[in-house]
Amino acid sequence: MKITEITVEDVRVPTSDTLLGSDPFHRKPDYSAVFITLHTDSDLTGNSLVFNIGAGNDWLAYGVKDLSVLIKNMAVAEFTDSPNLIYERLIDHHQMRWLADGVFRMAAGGLLNALWDLWAKTENKPLWALLVDLPPETLVASVNWRYLKDALTPDEALAILRQQQPEIEKRKEHFIDRGPAAYSTSGWLGLTDAEIVNHIEKLKQQGFRHFKAKVGTNLQDDINRLTQLRKVIGEDAFLMTDANQIWGVDEAIEWMSHLTDVRPYWIEEPTARDDVMGFIKIQKAMQPHGIGVAAGEQVPSPVIFKQLLSSGALTHCQIDATRLGGVNDVIAVILMAAKFNIPVCPHGGGIGLCNMIRHYSLWDQIAVAGTRDNRFCEYYDALQQDVFKVPVEVKDGCYVAPTQPGWGVEVHHAFIEKYRYPLSELWSNRSGPLGPLFIA
Amino acid sequence: MKITEITVEDVRVPTSDTLLGSDPFHRKPDYSAVFITLHTDSDLTGNSLVFNIGAGNDWLAYGVKDLSVLIKNMAVAEFTDSPNLIYERLIDHHQMRWLADGVFRMAAGGLLNALWDLWAKTENKPLWALLVDLPPETLVASVNWRYLKDALTPDEALAILRQQQPEIEKRKEHFIDRGPAAYSTSGWLGLTDAEIVNHIEKLKQQGFRHFKAKVGTNLQDDINRLTQLRKVIGEDAFLMTDANQIWGVDEAIEWMSHLTDVRPYWIEEPTARDDVMGFIKIQKAMQPHGIGVAAGEQVPSPVIFKQLLSSGALTHCQIDATRLGGVNDVIAVILMAAKFNIPVCPHGGGIGLCNMIRHYSLWDQIAVAGTRDNRFCEYYDALQQDVFKVPVEVKDGCYVAPTQPGWGVEVHHAFIEKYRYPLSELWSNRSGPLGPLFIA
Repeated sequence: MKITEITVEDVRVPTSDTLLGSDPFHRKPDYSAVFITLHTDSDLTGNSLVFNIGAGNDWLAYGVKDLSVLIKNMAVAEFTDSPNLIYERLIDHHQMRWLADGVFRMAAGGLLNALWDLWAKTENKPLWALLVDLPPETLVASVNWRYLKDALTPDEALAILRQQQPEIEKRKEHFIDRGPAAYSTSGWLGLTDAEIVNHIEKLKQQGFRHFKAKVGTNLQDDINRLTQLRKVIGEDAFLMTDANQIWGVDEAIEWMSHLTDVRPYWIEEPTARDDVMGFIKIQKAMQPHGIGVAAGEQVPSPVIFKQLLSSGALTHCQIDATRLGGVNDVIAVILMAAKFNIPVCPHGGGIGLCNMIRHYSLWDQIAVAGTRDNRFCEYYDALQQDVFKVPVEVKDGCYVAPTQPGWGVEVHHAFIEKYRYPLSELWSNRSGPLGPLFIA
Repeated sequence: MKITEITVEDVRVPTSDTLLGSDPFHRKPDYSAVFITLHTDSDLTGNSLVFNIGAGNDWLAYGVKDLSVLIKNMAVAEFTDSPNLIYERLIDHHQMRWLADGVFRMAAGGLLNALWDLWAKTENKPLWALLVDLPPETLVASVNWRYLKDALTPDEALAILRQQQPEIEKRKEHFIDRGPAAYSTSGWLGLTDAEIVNHIEKLKQQGFRHFKAKVGTNLQDDINRLTQLRKVIGEDAFLMTDANQIWGVDEAIEWMSHLTDVRPYWIEEPTARDDVMGFIKIQKAMQPHGIGVAAGEQVPSPVIFKQLLSSGALTHCQIDATRLGGVNDVIAVILMAAKFNIPVCPHGGGIGLCNMIRHYSLWDQIAVAGTRDNRFCEYYDALQQDVFKVPVEVKDGCYVAPTQPGWGVEVHHAFIEKYRYPLSELWSNRSGPLGPLFIA
């Protein structure tokens, strides 16, 4: 089977109209994604996406299209035989690597993830089952170890995976019955108090016990809102807080010291995505209060993850599905998290992230960490129906393990048509690309 | 004065034909740059460039063009009144910041640097003199302090700058007479031993005492080549080594332990650009051997610099002119380097970097650190004549302080015409963009 053509779509939903997903720093996101399809000379396609929050989605689409020449006309077996060689062809390209992380790694990751989708489909398995069933040697060989060996050696990684092998078949059955625990983000800045209470009541009835609120705009508002939230969710539920990198290091420590009464379970992204030493300082300050520290959605490289995990700066590892260099990088991060006993709680939301991260939680909990303990996978119920052909399912507060082959990120044609940027009717009739760029 | 139009050129020189600038990781760079011109309703233009090593230069050009809408039609005074506000408009754009560092920060930095060029030209000063003459309050206010205050407060920054004020006028005269010390990179992998010896003899006659060699491909080759180099340059000269991120952390320590006999002055980029904890470990291992640790050309953000400088992981701070968010970010890095007593030795080479970094070395040595001690500014003599209207000048091993207003990065039209990518005659007649992408 050969990759014959790669198509790339820039799709943006004007979520800024409702402030869905807004936070102090990312004030008016338009949830967007670059949808990638690898066409082959068979019936199968390789599908993936790269999530973004609006402007700049065309940069990602541009990058994916450019890099796609590196895998066009390639036999799919070339990837499945040596996933790390194709990873290196993209990520370690001898000229392109000057572009570093961000757009470049995300674009390359989009193509790698589409190749993994194709691999899973050739084996007629959902992505999680492909990962669970692959021999440990194959998984370890798919990782680029150049910069990671000081924290985790390939041999240690093998040992972690082999140790779980005897339990895998039994656990698979359990997880098909009841998937990884989900948690939902409430307390969005865009909602009124009454809307938040309503939303939480609905979620509690669905079996959720973990709730997350944005913080960092105004301290007194945060105290009031979190106190109110704590009452609504009850003393036994988990209340996460999320600052979306609004603070400096010392400011984060100071601000959180005023929120201890509501017993936050964690503070997420208290400061810059790449401030390893800052995270270490913050984690040390949070520890006496029993507040965890989480990050991942913008952690730009496996090397930053390596430092955050090996130092204990993170108490929860929020891997994202489209920030890093695809499955190859995420395998490395989940293995490092296992070595350092940091629970993996993937970052979801946006478009399509939940569809992808459920596979990682399943693989982690079945075959790497081998436990459900302290692991919650973010869940966000918007942009599923009428978007994905097979929407994400959650039951009794847990993800339902997907059964269709691959990631399960095939989208309805009508969704693409409606939100294609900038030429769809919807976007043609709006103020255009400059509008959101100029928000003060 | 108003910015009326922004033009962007993708220019690439096929340096891979001669392996100029090659290293173990970046095997066949084509030195490239995106040239940016801000046109105004006056005679002045704002000029800058973003350096790159070949493929992906179009990504940078695409990004710069897209971001340029954020400053088009803006009054130049809007920038000179509040440089940090325009910095935030670009770098902290509420949607674009999802794209993180790499392409996004480099593209934004290109525009910011062109605005600084215009500012210097409105004052009829070279960039270094603008920085030296601006009130400390203005410089400090041009920095975005959100993530930096735990290492350096704005008040500390002010104190550093104010302390130098009494000496500035006298030092200016000295530096106009004799600019910052330069050093040159010899020992390129692409050259034969005889060519290297010849090159070094020439440089010694020009007054250079610092020489740099690439390492990391083969240990025995490195030992042989460095031993030979040490003989040629003499015992008193400085021999720098550069691994261009080829190693993991422990590998770097092990490899360098075999090179101590040739007394390397520093090891540059021993491992990944963002491995702060790895650099800390390497620096501790190098210290007993008297080997320094340098990095900067790919350090992706001021936050990574903050950690590398405040931890002492770097003994030499190699700021680059086009990697970060323009002068605003570099001011912050140079101030942090001053606080932690780390000498600033900027990264040059490529196209146009030397033209820009000389301004930073002048500002640092006149008005921030206030000393020449242990400071060398990289120098590379190719791609100056027939490229820049006023080429960089070096005399007796020191840069000559430039006198023309701005950065001095205006290029000859014929250079752009010859190397414009992909439509120049030169590029049209080559194998095309896919050629270098596929190098094994």
